[in-house]
Parts: sequence; C-alpha cells; structure tokens
Amino acid sequence: MDRQFLLAPGPTPVPEEARLAMAKSLIHHRGQEFRVVFGEVRERLGWLFETEQPVLTVTASGTGTFEAAMINFTKRSDTIICIGGGKFGERWGEIGRAYGMNVVDLDVEWGEAVDPQQVADALDAHPDCAMVTLTASETSTGVLHPFEEVAEVIHDKSDALFAVDGITAVGVHRVPMDASGIDILVAGSQKAFGIPPGLGFVAASERAWERAADSDHPRYYFDLAREKKKQLDDQTAFTPGITQIIAAQVVLRMMVEEGRDALVARHQVNADATRAGVQALGLELLASRPANSVSAVLVPEGFSGPDVVRTMLDKHGATIAGGQAHLKPRLFRIGHIGFFDRSDILNALSALELTLEELGMDVERGRAVAAAQGVYADNLL
Amino acid sequence: MDRQFLLAPGPTPVPEEARLAMAKSLIHHRGQEFRVVFGEVRERLGWLFETEQPVLTVTASGTGTFEAAMINFTKRSDTIICIGGGKFGERWGEIGRAYGMNVVDLDVEWGEAVDPQQVADALDAHPDCAMVTLTASETSTGVLHPFEEVAEVIHDKSDALFAVDGITAVGVHRVPMDASGIDILVAGSQKAFGIPPGLGFVAASERAWERAADSDHPRYYFDLAREKKKQLDDQTAFTPGITQIIAAQVVLRMMVEEGRDALVARHQVNADATRAGVQALGLELLASRPANSVSAVLVPEGFSGPDVVRTMLDKHGATIAGGQAHLKPRLFRIGHIGFFDRSDILNALSALELTLEELGMDVERGRAVAAAQGVYADNLL
Repeated sequence: MDRQFLLAPGPTPVPEEARLAMAKSLIHHRGQEFRVVFGEVRERLGWLFETEQPVLTVTASGTGTFEAAMINFTKRSDTIICIGGGKFGERWGEIGRAYGMNVVDLDVEWGEAVDPQQVADALDAHPDCAMVTLTASETSTGVLHPFEEVAEVIHDKSDALFAVDGITAVGVHRVPMDASGIDILVAGSQKAFGIPPGLGFVAASERAWERAADSDHPRYYFDLAREKKKQLDDQTAFTPGITQIIAAQVVLRMMVEEGRDALVARHQVNADATRAGVQALGLELLASRPANSVSAVLVPEGFSGPDVVRTMLDKHGATIAGGQAHLKPRLFRIGHIGFFDRSDILNALSALELTLEELGMDVERGRAVAAAQGVYADNLL
Repeated sequence: MDRQFLLAPGPTPVPEEARLAMAKSLIHHRGQEFRVVFGEVRERLGWLFETEQPVLTVTASGTGTFEAAMINFTKRSDTIICIGGGKFGERWGEIGRAYGMNVVDLDVEWGEAVDPQQVADALDAHPDCAMVTLTASETSTGVLHPFEEVAEVIHDKSDALFAVDGITAVGVHRVPMDASGIDILVAGSQKAFGIPPGLGFVAASERAWERAADSDHPRYYFDLAREKKKQLDDQTAFTPGITQIIAAQVVLRMMVEEGRDALVARHQVNADATRAGVQALGLELLASRPANSVSAVLVPEGFSGPDVVRTMLDKHGATIAGGQAHLKPRLFRIGHIGFFDRSDILNALSALELTLEELGMDVERGRAVAAAQGVYADNLL
C-alpha cells in the first residue's frame, strides 16, 4: 500500500487540525458561536489580504466569487480590459462577455508574463476602460504576473479599477492589496488555505465600493453590497458554508502563527526545490516568471504529459495536474501551494524520477531529489 | 454540561458517518475516485427526486441554486407568477425582480396554504405567464402547499413551467417530480440530507431544458446547461464542494437503505409527535396545513417568541429558530427535518416545557412529552 498524495495546484491537502474541526457537530450560522468564528475569520483574512477593507466570504467556488467581483463593480455598458495568458486570465473575459460588456482581450502568450507596457498601450487605446483584470498567479501556466507594476500603470493612466484573481497567489506570495493599489482581490478556499472547495473570499477598495452603487448587472445571490452589510455584523445574507468557515478559522490561525513572511518563504523554498529537481532531470519550465504556487513542466518531444500524470497516480498515488487547453499534450503541473513541507516535495520528485524512467526517459535516479536537497540545505539548515 | 442540540429547520445535524467521511484526506475532483462518488450521488438524487432527468449539483447555498433554477429557464421579458405565503415563497419574486422580469406576486397569508383556484385565476389574468414558482414546504411558516394540485391547474391552463423550491420538502414528503408535473425542482444540502450547507441540487423537465436554449439572462457560474453537459459525464464545470459531495454519498446511502416511504413516515411521526406535544401545552400552530419539516408555533399573547428561542439555547443547549419578518415577535420554530429520531423530539419537548415554565407560563411538566409518547406508541410500538 502507498499513501495517496494530493500534489495538484488545488484542491490541496487539508491539515488534520482542520479536518477534525470539520468533523465536529455542526453549529447554526445564526448563533453566537458562529459569529465569533466568522468575526475571527474576517479579521485574519484582512491580515492575509493586507487590507483595511472587509474581506467577504462567498459560498461558491472561486469562479463564482470572481464573477461576483466583476459584476458588482461594473456596468453593462462598460469596457473592460482582460489580461490573458492562461485559462484563468481568459476566464475574466468570458464572464465579461456573458454579461454583455465590451471586453478587450489583452493577449499574452501562455507561459509569458504580461508586460506592463502592453497594459499602458491598451489603456491608451481604450481610455474609457472601467476595469482591468489580471490573474496574479496563472494556475494553468505557473506564471506570476507583475501585478504591482500593472497596478501602477493602471492608476497612472486611468480611473479604471484593478481587479485581481489572487486565487493561487494569496497566501503564497505577498499580495498587499491596499499598498499595491489593487481594487478588487479574490481568493479561494482550496488553495493556499488548504481547506475544501466551496468558499471564495473577496475584498474591494473604497473607490470600487463607490462604483458598486451604479452597477446595473442583475444579481441576487452574488449581491456583494448586501453581503458587506451583513458580514460587517458577522453574519451572512444566506446560509454559508459553515463547515469550511470553521476550517478557515483553524488554518488562518496556523498561518498567523507561521507568519506572513515565513509562509511566503516556505512556498518559495518548496517551489525552488521543485524547480531545481525537474531542471536537474533536463526538463524545462513553461513559465518565464514562475509563481511559487505551481510548477508547470514541459515534457520533451516524444513524451506525453498525460502519461506522466497517469503514471504518477497509478504507480505512486500522487495526484498532479495535467496541462490545460492546447498545452495538454506537453505539460504537467506539480502544485506546492498550501500546507506542504519538504517531505511532500522530495516524495513528489522521487515519484517523478521513477515515472519518467518507466516512460522510457533517461533518468539518473536520485538526481532531482539531490537537487531539491541542495535547495533545502541552503535555505533551512 | 449539557449536549448542544441543533433543532432548527436547517442546518440540521450531520450524521456521524458523514462527519467522519468528511474528515478523511481530501480527494481531487478530476480523478476517478471522485467520478465514482459523484455518479452514485447523481443516481441516488434521481431516486429521491423521483425523476428520470439528471439532478445537478450546484456549489452554492439554496438561494443561489434557486436563482440558477429561475434564470436558466426564463427570459428577461417573461412574466412569472410567484406564489408567496412566506419568506422563501416571496424570495422567488425578489430574484425575478432583480433580473428585470415582470413578476406577478400571488399573495397568500403567512400560515395559509395557497388555494389552487388562486393560481387558476392568476393564470387567467396573465395567460402569457412563462413560469409559476412555489415553495413546497414554506420554512418560515411550516406550511405544506398543495403542490400537486397547483401543478395540475398550471398544466391544464397554460404552458407555464412549474418551478418548485423543495428545499425543506424533498426527503421529508414524497415530491415525485416527474409524476407530479414539476418542471424544476430544487433541494439544499443542509436540510433533509443532514449535510453541511454549501450545495444545492436541481433538476429540470425536458420541456424546461428546451426553453433553456432561449434564456437571455446573463450568467456564467450558474449556467446549468454547461453543468448538465459536464455532470452527465460525472464531472463538474467548476471545482465543486468535494467534501459535502462525499457526505452526500454517505447520507444518500442511508436514505436508500431506510427507504423512501420509511423516510417520509419517520418525518411524519416526528412532526406529529412535536405537534401533539406543543398543542398539549395549549400552544397553537401557525400552519393551516403543516409540513413535516418544521413546526411553527405561536406563543400566547404576552409572551415573546425570541425569549423562547433564547431560553431554549441558554438553558437547554437547544438551537431552535425564531419567527421571520413580521412573525418574529410571536413565533418559534422547531425543526424535525433530517436525521432525527424520537430521542431528539422528546428532548426538545422536555426543554420546551421547562423553558415555558421559566418564562412564566402555566405548564404541567411532562404533558408535552406524554402527548408525543402517545404518538410514538401508536405508530412505532
């Protein structure tokens, strides 16, 4: 028997402390006990988002939450610039189109980071732009976009709101919402938080809230103004995902105890170790500017990304992710976002070595593991 | 120390088997293990809904799910008739208005059931009506509306779709979707299912799906046609509430083992026992036609519903629900929907007796309990 390992870029393993808290008898969301939990979660989310604004909890998955983030702060007639470069970056544009907005796609090659100059040019071409959207860490390619520079360009050039999908960035990199000039920031439960999917988190700047009053998109469940009013009173407008909120209390305490910089440093070292490992095997990363949440790895010509994913699972019990869209044949992705430590990474790399060997690649056993050990030795010992 | 009891009409206690399943290591929603779970959940939901149509799982609370149910099967220009009679019945109308539809409110006094003749008259007055909505079991009043007779009237008189919020009806009463002529049926996880909030379930008739193609409401996360395509393949369009789905597998197995009629009979006996108990204390029920999910009880003049709720919690650890809207001062509600047995009901009634005594009512201790015992003796022994 081999243990099963979840090494995808979400959902990520749920710490035992949180799982046991979720197994306790359910409490009612209108009682005092829940209010105390929810108040603590809200406060610590603010700490993680580095914002003075309330961070709202939405009971839906990340996509539902960023749909809410888009439609509450724009109007139907608005022009929005959606920075692509991957499946999730492009999803903002799909949502905008579903709501009949004028969507300007800012194309970025998958694997590349957006050049802030591209954003400047797009704003020059569309001076009426009401919102620019970006996926800070693009899960489909493993790229970290320079969100702070993009924010600067946007605010220099325009009055557009800057909306950031931080679903695989928050808790991995510092994403200081207020200091960076991010107007809307979204995160999701099943990523760095290591809690089960079903919750999203979203905060908005004061100027975004001012514009919310003008929004004319139809919405009911995703009405964030109603949620804000309720949640500032430690309540929710509708029955929330109580169990995940209880898990959030546990993991946010763990994060606060670890410390914001230590949390980022742990992700950095795990990411560096993973990347050193795969590169030691002669494999290349897709991302020109890699995020610390996921490593997207290209397989050499003649090999198949899906075969790597399947063999990792079947022979080693390790769930990694495949490539998405046109990258599916040549890509696999190892997640290291959430409550991972070196044992997870060393195990992943060991399984990867044996997988590639089985698939017929020329692999020197232990090479990737040794490269990762080197990173840990330099950073932790 | 006293155990805490959740006796609200949702969220309801989660059976230990489901809580322990939820505490296991998380699995990935794109793997084979999840597909098997999800396929089983879908099949057994079909059994419970009594439909040949696929029952879709939505990761959101009940309100989000019935918003999805409304906007996928109507057009912006549609006229819809929304049967009121309580907070949730009226919510359908609020959603319709948020989407700019022409909403005809069919007013029903809170506590009364709708008269099918009222629906017939409304359809005569609005022959272009595209959808009639009803909350089968109205959680705010404890009324069971005669949804089968309403369905007959609708289909006799019109081509309107019949959309039913079955959130506190499915799993409590038989709601045979196909045989009753219900076009759209919604249920929610934290009610009869006894799993934590965060999932909704929805099925639609063939003719409803035909109309879905014409819907022009903007939507992305709540696009049910996209979900249908994915879920027929035992996948979901977006990351689902994996943990609650695993819990759903456990509780649906328990329901199937208990049997559909036995499940309904257990709710019937628990409801009868509760009602016999409160009536033995001289209290009156609000509902003219009570549902088996919740008993809404009026307190006599001079007493306060909120005091009952507070004392039940503070002195007896029992979470019951208060009244909603204008009924708040005079109502309390005891839920008996979900995995309850006689020990829960006897405990609730014992706590209620002591609560009312403490609040100054003239109570003969044991009287409510004895009345409930009578019901159990007649039905179970």
